[in-house]
Amino acid sequence: MSDLDAKKQELKEYLTKIEYLNSLLGLVHWDMRVNIPQNAVNYRGEVAGFLAGEHYKLITSDKVKEFIEYFSTCENLDEITSASIRKLKKEYDQTMKIPEKLYVEFVNLVSVAESVWEEAKKKGDFNLFKPYLEKIINYNKQFAELYGYKKKRYDALLDNYEMGMTEEELDRIFMPLKDAIINLLKKLKEANYEPKDHILKGHYPITKQREFARIIAEKLGYDLSSGRIDESAHPFTIELGVNDIRITTRYDEENFITGLLSNIHEMGHAIYEQNISQDLKGTLLMTGTSMGIHESQSRFYENIIGRSKEFWENIYPDVTNFFPELKRLSVDDIYDAVNSIKPSLIRVDADEITYSLHIIIRYEMEKLMMDEDIDVDELPKIWNQKYKDYLGVEVQNYSEGILQDVHWSGGMIGYFPSYALGNLYGAQILNKMLKDIPDLYERIENGDFLSIKSWLNQNIHRYGSLYTPSELIEKITGEKLNPEYFIKRCEKIVEAKLR
Amino acid sequence: MSDLDAKKQELKEYLTKIEYLNSLLGLVHWDMRVNIPQNAVNYRGEVAGFLAGEHYKLITSDKVKEFIEYFSTCENLDEITSASIRKLKKEYDQTMKIPEKLYVEFVNLVSVAESVWEEAKKKGDFNLFKPYLEKIINYNKQFAELYGYKKKRYDALLDNYEMGMTEEELDRIFMPLKDAIINLLKKLKEANYEPKDHILKGHYPITKQREFARIIAEKLGYDLSSGRIDESAHPFTIELGVNDIRITTRYDEENFITGLLSNIHEMGHAIYEQNISQDLKGTLLMTGTSMGIHESQSRFYENIIGRSKEFWENIYPDVTNFFPELKRLSVDDIYDAVNSIKPSLIRVDADEITYSLHIIIRYEMEKLMMDEDIDVDELPKIWNQKYKDYLGVEVQNYSEGILQDVHWSGGMIGYFPSYALGNLYGAQILNKMLKDIPDLYERIENGDFLSIKSWLNQNIHRYGSLYTPSELIEKITGEKLNPEYFIKRCEKIVEAKLR
Repeated sequence: MSDLDAKKQELKEYLTKIEYLNSLLGLVHWDMRVNIPQNAVNYRGEVAGFLAGEHYKLITSDKVKEFIEYFSTCENLDEITSASIRKLKKEYDQTMKIPEKLYVEFVNLVSVAESVWEEAKKKGDFNLFKPYLEKIINYNKQFAELYGYKKKRYDALLDNYEMGMTEEELDRIFMPLKDAIINLLKKLKEANYEPKDHILKGHYPITKQREFARIIAEKLGYDLSSGRIDESAHPFTIELGVNDIRITTRYDEENFITGLLSNIHEMGHAIYEQNISQDLKGTLLMTGTSMGIHESQSRFYENIIGRSKEFWENIYPDVTNFFPELKRLSVDDIYDAVNSIKPSLIRVDADEITYSLHIIIRYEMEKLMMDEDIDVDELPKIWNQKYKDYLGVEVQNYSEGILQDVHWSGGMIGYFPSYALGNLYGAQILNKMLKDIPDLYERIENGDFLSIKSWLNQNIHRYGSLYTPSELIEKITGEKLNPEYFIKRCEKIVEAKLR
Repeated sequence: MSDLDAKKQELKEYLTKIEYLNSLLGLVHWDMRVNIPQNAVNYRGEVAGFLAGEHYKLITSDKVKEFIEYFSTCENLDEITSASIRKLKKEYDQTMKIPEKLYVEFVNLVSVAESVWEEAKKKGDFNLFKPYLEKIINYNKQFAELYGYKKKRYDALLDNYEMGMTEEELDRIFMPLKDAIINLLKKLKEANYEPKDHILKGHYPITKQREFARIIAEKLGYDLSSGRIDESAHPFTIELGVNDIRITTRYDEENFITGLLSNIHEMGHAIYEQNISQDLKGTLLMTGTSMGIHESQSRFYENIIGRSKEFWENIYPDVTNFFPELKRLSVDDIYDAVNSIKPSLIRVDADEITYSLHIIIRYEMEKLMMDEDIDVDELPKIWNQKYKDYLGVEVQNYSEGILQDVHWSGGMIGYFPSYALGNLYGAQILNKMLKDIPDLYERIENGDFLSIKSWLNQNIHRYGSLYTPSELIEKITGEKLNPEYFIKRCEKIVEAKLR
């Protein structure tokens, strides 16, 4: 074995250990959110802290520094090792830049902040959460300074969730999107458009919904012999290791659409993770490349497939077989209802058109938090004003306003844009896919979901984190992220409503 | 802080880490047997192997040697630290004797073997499991040689589950028990006794059985805010950490007794673990002291409480409320049926009288595996012959023969005798309890299960592993293990049937 090969082998063994710890952290968190008995939470917190500490030790060891130095000087390094080292170096650099003391303070803060937020949301009391939000903003400012950035402080945080993303780039993408959507909502209002989502209300037994989820998994190609569907308060997808990608969902007995689309969304994430090449085992690359690309996959399945007319043509016989009362509605009725457009206060319940506005509001709030010296007292007022200006809705209490999302209480600033990027990536990918598969929608109608999955596997999934998100979108579509595809899609959807 | 106190603190921190790893191993194994998607088994095996390796490192470190040396020279060491060091020393000594490579190989083997066994049992295909069983026997032989023993190789394994136990001692206890039971079965046959268990056959929806399990948990005092009830092929109890003691069960739609008694059995284990003093956190002692004592608790709940007339008097209203078709039977009918004596093929379905014969057969098989050079091909035939000779039943296929139990596939040889020891400890403990609580059976009839639990908490549970099993049984009852109490109990039960 050459010196280089021996070193590569050593690297692989080292990264494999980190992956084992990631797998254990995945299992610990999955269990905490799906199964754990209430009295066990505290001790499990200790165990999770212990694991995180072991992970920290492995990421920041001298061994890692040595690997980075060794491979940085290698010429003609293979693509996989090179990407693997890039990822390891990023984790090492980011972790080393934050003094341990500061990091522990922050972890302690957010572990309290999340429960305070829960309480504050329940009571609709912003003042309760305010001091925590203030501290979380200040810590994130400190972190951004320590990470370093070129133009805007916020950039340092954005880069954590979407490698290379900047405020300048997001402004370029989000500004036209915001104008376009506000304009479309104006048109709908002028035409007195009325959403018809209420026609779906009924009684859908949860045991039936659970069974139906398995049929959808089979259709779409979410492999349950390498996954599971469970239930939790907030739906999520989690990797527990090779061939173990689990999703959770939340069923509503009165509305089967919530649970169905939430399942399809999470299956989009899970299909991504299940189809990454196993050659990437032991490289840290066997996971989706960014939150934005991940959301593009979940939203592709949820919106582009799951809200298409052809999808409903295809599943109508199954759906009405499971829920006979739906026979009163035609495919057209259901299709119209699941595509209702309805400006509202709550992000997670938003339709495909208004969803991005919810994100853009949070993005603009985060810019204020990070780049300006904004008084935290001002934030709720600004939030409410933006909801009024962009969506035309009045926030009545903080629970359905600034307190609605968990992210900031969890210390995450810079995450929200990923959700909107997912929509944009998705539409751009669809445009390319339609060139390769012109009969895409016929295939959906015929239930040939597996050839669509196969295209995604081939062009996106298998690469895992081998490419950065911007490299990947260029590789797939031949151009960089372009908001026009999604804007056009929104215009088409609205036009159909006005016809 | 004195030097001793500082050292005690250091010990506690060290043992806490070992306990975190135990907690993670518990979670990993629980998930493997309750949830894991089939394709994830191999990778999970790697992760389990990694964890076991980390555990091995902590148990065999120089630090541990230093702790043992330091505390061995301490005079007047407190009882807890002293027992803690005794336990640590035993683990250290036993582990040091097994080379790490061999141990990790073994852990990887059994994590796969369990799923192969499941498959083999499903198909009734011994050949599928045979190569794994052969390897497991060979590893255990190697381990026994490395542990060392005085007389028989098997002794080295027995000592792992029941400290100080030997083949000679078990022969002393099991021989009279075997003769007594075979003799009782002869008497029943001569008297043309016919079991009446078939009268319970019916249709008991599994969702109802699940609900009923929660009512029984509440009655007996198995705390579900520190535990869970799930389902798995082979019922078990597992500790996932402080306040997280989970049980599993297996329901039969035609016979609610199987699931009910299996639940009560596992709750007996879980109540033991849930009620160990939390002062023992960080000492390795916060777990039951031996498998035999553990089985005494599960069988106490299953047989002494769960098969008593008074228990059925108490739960009759609830049971008939959940399963109205049972109203056709009186308490006496049900009591008679759940105490049917019926030589059969399946250990877990066995009645209290014949149960010990199932164990003695496995004990004799394990003696052959460990002490002789038996060909694995021969084992099924020997198994079948013993079932014919002792119980008078014919094995028709391997699933209900040699493949019925999970233990060997889990690598455990030497565990089975604990079950029979549990019966014997249990009867001896009952004898003492009746002196302290003469109205025991009245309390059961009145549903005052918590005062019984309280006696067990006080006399057994809270101590965890502070005492060895032989110390504990002497502390409770004033004498060493004596099989006569259980033999007398069996004779009484049979006499009642012949009356």
